[in-house]
Amino acid sequence: MTPQEARARFSTARVARLATITAEGAPRLVPITFAVLPSLEPAELGMIVTAVDHKPKRTTRLRRLDDIAREPRVTLLADEYDDDWTRLWWARAEGVARVVEPADQLHASVVRALTDRYRQYREHPPAGPAILISVTRWSGWAYTG
Amino acid sequence: MTPQEARARFSTARVARLATITAEGAPRLVPITFAVLPSLEPAELGMIVTAVDHKPKRTTRLRRLDDIAREPRVTLLADEYDDDWTRLWWARAEGVARVVEPADQLHASVVRALTDRYRQYREHPPAGPAILISVTRWSGWAYTG
Repeated sequence: MTPQEARARFSTARVARLATITAEGAPRLVPITFAVLPSLEPAELGMIVTAVDHKPKRTTRLRRLDDIAREPRVTLLADEYDDDWTRLWWARAEGVARVVEPADQLHASVVRALTDRYRQYREHPPAGPAILISVTRWSGWAYTG
Repeated sequence: MTPQEARARFSTARVARLATITAEGAPRLVPITFAVLPSLEPAELGMIVTAVDHKPKRTTRLRRLDDIAREPRVTLLADEYDDDWTRLWWARAEGVARVVEPADQLHASVVRALTDRYRQYREHPPAGPAILISVTRWSGWAYTG
């Protein structure tokens, strides 16, 4: 799968998984809602955005944010499973993440991109810190094709 | 979600994602087919198994195996996405992985557990190295409880 196709497939997924590195050096893994921002130039690898939202959790100061502050390299994966294995595919983004606090003017752009994709955010726009991932590599795999 | 419930939900998923740490210290992420082995004692956290199979790939000596040889701490995630967010859930296993080569007598048990879950493996049992993950922690989350 070409990087362009990996990016295209990833962009259509409704959920991705974000891997960060904990303070102890082990991998952490959480599912996220996200948006891939449109690139201004075709050669750009682009940005993925996500944000801490209203879905029930213990705190909005999530440990994934501390992980990123310490180690900004992250990996994201979108995949589709089907019991017909000829339909399997996955797409992966490696990148460098940074946390954007709600006070930052970039935060509104992230919220807009997420609100465009998820109707739930129209009623409850994500109010917590956002995460911007600058993609450094797209890769992917499909059983056929 | 209790650890017991996280384990039960994880066990029903058809796909999970395995996070390892690369030689460069960044997270690597791949989707896997897997089985959770039954525990002999209720207090046991149990084992998750997966194996390199016949699904097309560049090599059966996958980089995830080298990652595990260097850093055995891994994290696995199973999740269900639905546009009705009250149906969302995820379940996570943290653990310590080891690679079991096909010559090892444990390999046959892994293949049996996988073949029981995936009909594709009945025709093509996984012939590559297996990965056994000793779970050290189960956790999870569901939108409604």
